[in-house]
Amino acid sequence: MRLQDIASHIGADLCSAGPDIEIEGLASLSSAGPGHLSFLVSADLLELANQSRAGALICPHDLVQQLSQQTSRPLLASKQPYLAYAHASGLFTDEAAPAGIHPSASVDKSVEMADDVHIGANAVVGPGVRLAAGVAVGSGCQLGRNVQIGEATRLFPNVVLYHGVRLGSDCILHSGAVLGADGFGFAPSANGWVKIHQLGTVIVGDRVEIGPNCTVARGALDDTRIGNGVIMDAQVLIAHNVEVGENTAFAGQSGAAGSARIGANCTFGGQSGVVGHIEIADNVHLQGRSVITKSIYQAGSYSSLWPQLPAGEWRRMVASLRHAAKKKAE
Amino acid sequence: MRLQDIASHIGADLCSAGPDIEIEGLASLSSAGPGHLSFLVSADLLELANQSRAGALICPHDLVQQLSQQTSRPLLASKQPYLAYAHASGLFTDEAAPAGIHPSASVDKSVEMADDVHIGANAVVGPGVRLAAGVAVGSGCQLGRNVQIGEATRLFPNVVLYHGVRLGSDCILHSGAVLGADGFGFAPSANGWVKIHQLGTVIVGDRVEIGPNCTVARGALDDTRIGNGVIMDAQVLIAHNVEVGENTAFAGQSGAAGSARIGANCTFGGQSGVVGHIEIADNVHLQGRSVITKSIYQAGSYSSLWPQLPAGEWRRMVASLRHAAKKKAE
Amino acid sequence: MRLQDIASHIGADLCSAGPDIEIEGLASLSSAGPGHLSFLVSADLLELANQSRAGALICPHDLVQQLSQQTSRPLLASKQPYLAYAHASGLFTDEAAPAGIHPSASVDKSVEMADDVHIGANAVVGPGVRLAAGVAVGSGCQLGRNVQIGEATRLFPNVVLYHGVRLGSDCILHSGAVLGADGFGFAPSANGWVKIHQLGTVIVGDRVEIGPNCTVARGALDDTRIGNGVIMDAQVLIAHNVEVGENTAFAGQSGAAGSARIGANCTFGGQSGVVGHIEIADNVHLQGRSVITKSIYQAGSYSSLWPQLPAGEWRRMVASLRHAAKKKAE
Repeated sequence: MRLQDIASHIGADLCSAGPDIEIEGLASLSSAGPGHLSFLVSADLLELANQSRAGALICPHDLVQQLSQQTSRPLLASKQPYLAYAHASGLFTDEAAPAGIHPSASVDKSVEMADDVHIGANAVVGPGVRLAAGVAVGSGCQLGRNVQIGEATRLFPNVVLYHGVRLGSDCILHSGAVLGADGFGFAPSANGWVKIHQLGTVIVGDRVEIGPNCTVARGALDDTRIGNGVIMDAQVLIAHNVEVGENTAFAGQSGAAGSARIGANCTFGGQSGVVGHIEIADNVHLQGRSVITKSIYQAGSYSSLWPQLPAGEWRRMVASLRHAAKKKAE
Repeated sequence: MRLQDIASHIGADLCSAGPDIEIEGLASLSSAGPGHLSFLVSADLLELANQSRAGALICPHDLVQQLSQQTSRPLLASKQPYLAYAHASGLFTDEAAPAGIHPSASVDKSVEMADDVHIGANAVVGPGVRLAAGVAVGSGCQLGRNVQIGEATRLFPNVVLYHGVRLGSDCILHSGAVLGADGFGFAPSANGWVKIHQLGTVIVGDRVEIGPNCTVARGALDDTRIGNGVIMDAQVLIAHNVEVGENTAFAGQSGAAGSARIGANCTFGGQSGVVGHIEIADNVHLQGRSVITKSIYQAGSYSSLWPQLPAGEWRRMVASLRHAAKKKAE
Repeated sequence: MRLQDIASHIGADLCSAGPDIEIEGLASLSSAGPGHLSFLVSADLLELANQSRAGALICPHDLVQQLSQQTSRPLLASKQPYLAYAHASGLFTDEAAPAGIHPSASVDKSVEMADDVHIGANAVVGPGVRLAAGVAVGSGCQLGRNVQIGEATRLFPNVVLYHGVRLGSDCILHSGAVLGADGFGFAPSANGWVKIHQLGTVIVGDRVEIGPNCTVARGALDDTRIGNGVIMDAQVLIAHNVEVGENTAFAGQSGAAGSARIGANCTFGGQSGVVGHIEIADNVHLQGRSVITKSIYQAGSYSSLWPQLPAGEWRRMVASLRHAAKKKAE
């Protein structure tokens, strides 16, 4: 791919004396070779960039001069080099699944689908399912009855969608994700737990990415709702009747308990958690491993993360603090 | 479904002037329409109930009078409205899988099964498996050799049971659950870890529900045991040789480490944990995100959950407490 | 299996007056019968050993005399009884999958594989995949294009390997494990998150065991790397571009965030975590539920685990410590 074409695609300026070379891929500064395009976002990486063997670089405008003094390689100047790199990454991925239905797939006769849908080997598509144009259902996926999937949404192998789950367009669901399994609803009785059958479903907006082995539970009565542009890393758990606002991000192994109402543009760090039945405003940022136990009405950063200490020191600290608190209580 | 029939099924009294209307489904107070049955458990919800468009309501006996004054809709009075709602929910779910074996399923000739068993598309059932009456094996499930499943137990798609796993009757296993994979047993040696082959299995009682993407490991020598009536939310991990007493509940992303012996009627909050080789009495309740590190012989509630603070305030608190503990130690 | 053969296999001395009996299996001291071999590692278990009905015992050399005084059963003396037990366990497992490709498997014509490879029912093997001698691909596994698997590596059912993932020899991957799904890379923009397509892959060394429902993400530009001899329990998450040194062990539900560089011979307790972009030396041991938030350059044990208290006591402690820290700040 010619560098000039990449520049156009990512909205960067090809601004150096270097030739319009052919780029074969993207690489990090340290591993790039002459056929690679790499990038730097700030002056901190200037030295590494100068040592890099990369054939071309994406950089901020204000570093063009310094970088040009060192080598004559082409530079793509961008206001947002990291975003430019994100856009460039899409040019070097080869993920498109060919249209067509694998003969080993089990597709119910009542399924309605566009002509260009891809259904992989051994996938199972239940009655009443509707698949829009460009949908790709990976091998081994399981789609329950009446599932609906919007345009160009892609399911990697072994995704499970229970009956009635609805996905918007341009979503990506990774392997092992399970959407629409029963929420955790049980009523106590003298004879043990009585199951509350979960009669809602899961409704996912557009441009949502759901990572591998994630779980989004179906609603008890109303639906669990995931807004447009939400992104989830691996092993995230969204419990029943949670509502997640647009563009909120969940890092790996985080979770939100039942009926939490989460705003837009929030970020949840890895292994963080949100208790059930609370409300979280827009633009709340929770540090990794922290827990939100009460509604938060104000945007900002929150934490309950204790960083590690050498084990002996940690043990003494815990003992000392417990002792102090106890003494004070007496 | 006629309201009078619902009342009989859930053991409630149809006690208002309203007619014996037809109910098409359950709904929450706020989303219900005239064809829906809804419920309230306490007087806190009276205002919401009066505003609700629900065609009928389940309510506690002592609210019948107040509710009748507002509208003439039928009321189902119940001693335990939440439990009544749970029982009612089962009337509006349509989950039964038709008996029969899908032609794409791979079922070993030696499998013994009742006539009315359901085996879904592309499921794989190994040699020596025994499936009792009413068992449903979802599409894409993988059953290793000599698995045994009791009456009316249902596996949603893509559940994996390793060889020898035994499930009781009336259980529900959700997609992505894996039972009987090797426990985490390794002996250190000069050449690295040496695998301890896991020779036990997993034995699950009756009326157990295991959520999506849960893991229950097989025992090293003896078996991992899950008692009758145990319920697990999504992504729960039960390690090898754990024993769980009857009706104990695990919320999402919680885990119990190897050889823990957990009593009956316990509840474990979301993301909570139990270390290995300890004993926990009956009726122990662990708050979300808390960890039990020593045996607990007394029923009650336990916690080690730190709630969040604004990040700056949290950081100052941690620094201050660390400093105080250190100073004291000197 | 004759006891003498077991002794030879595990490098122990058959050192008692007992006969060379036939052993039918391994069992724990308390559940063993006359046909079982059991083991004890220290004098703490002498009483239990003497009460055991086990037909033979593995024990440390220095306990031979005491054990011989109680019964005449054969003893296998070993310098490392636990390691000897680990080696013995391999004699009683029957896991070998027969060579051959199940007719229901979907195997691309371009796949290169050894004659003795096993591919289970309904497995899907994409174009360009290479499978070395002795590889076993369980039923329902999904192998993307150009996956490479080394000798004698075994995949249990429903494992997913995305395109280009490379596994060494003698690895074991358990059901529900997903390797090579996209790392969690997104650039913020005015229109929401822009996906950074993940162009690296996952490279796994030899003798690695990856537990059920684990996730190892593919690298953004460079590769995610798992060293030889690494072991992971269930539901572990290794994010993109992490590098893990040899023989490091991850207990259940632990996780390492993006680009962490983790040394060799480390151990991570259950539900522990490592933040991204940090470095961890060899021989670092992190207690369960603890988090490493900064690089650690020194071997040793670390912790940030708060053990539980009765809930009321815990609440008072938190309140008291918060109050003290706040007061001091004023």
